[in-house]
Amino acid sequence: MAINYPNGKKFVPSKEQPAKQQTAKKNKKDFSFSNRGKTLEDELNETNDYYLQLGLAVIHKKPVPLQIVKVEYPSRSAAVIREAYFQSPSTTDYNGVWNGKYIDFEAKETESKTSFPLKNIHDHQIHHMSQVVKQNGVAFMIIRFSSWQRYFIMPYGELEVFWNRMLTGGRKSVTLQEIEETSFELTPGAFPRINYLPLLNKL
Amino acid sequence: MAINYPNGKKFVPSKEQPAKQQTAKKNKKDFSFSNRGKTLEDELNETNDYYLQLGLAVIHKKPVPLQIVKVEYPSRSAAVIREAYFQSPSTTDYNGVWNGKYIDFEAKETESKTSFPLKNIHDHQIHHMSQVVKQNGVAFMIIRFSSWQRYFIMPYGELEVFWNRMLTGGRKSVTLQEIEETSFELTPGAFPRINYLPLLNKL
Repeated sequence: MAINYPNGKKFVPSKEQPAKQQTAKKNKKDFSFSNRGKTLEDELNETNDYYLQLGLAVIHKKPVPLQIVKVEYPSRSAAVIREAYFQSPSTTDYNGVWNGKYIDFEAKETESKTSFPLKNIHDHQIHHMSQVVKQNGVAFMIIRFSSWQRYFIMPYGELEVFWNRMLTGGRKSVTLQEIEETSFELTPGAFPRINYLPLLNKL
Repeated sequence: MAINYPNGKKFVPSKEQPAKQQTAKKNKKDFSFSNRGKTLEDELNETNDYYLQLGLAVIHKKPVPLQIVKVEYPSRSAAVIREAYFQSPSTTDYNGVWNGKYIDFEAKETESKTSFPLKNIHDHQIHHMSQVVKQNGVAFMIIRFSSWQRYFIMPYGELEVFWNRMLTGGRKSVTLQEIEETSFELTPGAFPRINYLPLLNKL
């Protein structure tokens, strides 16, 4: 008997379902009640939304920069972009204001259990954060070790040390132990999930 | 005799060339040596670049937010976005840090010679600026009267008054005279064209 989806589309059993399998694998690891396979970006957006609603801070994720090549204007409807390319961002992903302070950070997660690979960060993002610090802004990185559900706030000053170590021929990653020693660990909560503002007082 | 362009394309004299005529019209009005029909956005990007290079401030324009619907991955080349739509921004266009202060502004130009139409601004941009001010950030609007090549910095507090006047049934624009009375006029220079940082001390 043929099985169809409710929308009439034919059900085709597939032997390989990498996307689904990955989700299942992730859920297996997830012992926390509030985390349901959310990305770090999801968690941060929810946290920033919470801050915004409560008037605690105004911090937004920047849109992804795109180079738009072709736009069509179908009659009576909105413009449709038909050709565009992702551009590499010249700044970090998140910025905003908290208590008169300028806040600027990048957020990265890793599946590694032992270290954070620095290839996740772009050269110009480091440069941007150094410029922010020179203007007395607060710049840092939020790192999630997804396997452990552990979160760290690494001040830019520390990140810069590891970055320069790499540039001068040293290791291309920061070990979890080094992060434990140089960064502030953030205990994830129910809501907001990643309450990073209180930790910024320590920076 | 048929006249061809150097690239061999046929020259077709056109009676209506609205785009070109507009440019010509703009140039006619342009008595300043440094402005060559640049948009306000161009001028601000150059100014912000200047500030960045000299280490005076770190202020960037945010990318336009897009809703990406369809992405193709042609083999061996970069991902191509094949369907995307413009989204209305939830914040202002520009933000950054200057001397430890959070800076946030929207920039708008008008062809009108007598008033600035408030329909150029979105409701949520006003809301965003009010939130910024509550967090002790510096929020304002840069207005260019393109016909006069006159530039003004209107603090958010003044903008809010005109906005609320509109919401309560008043006029939907701000007259040039009102702007002269409530905003700080910025004299355009050669380089940077719109040196707005010194005026922020007055806000």
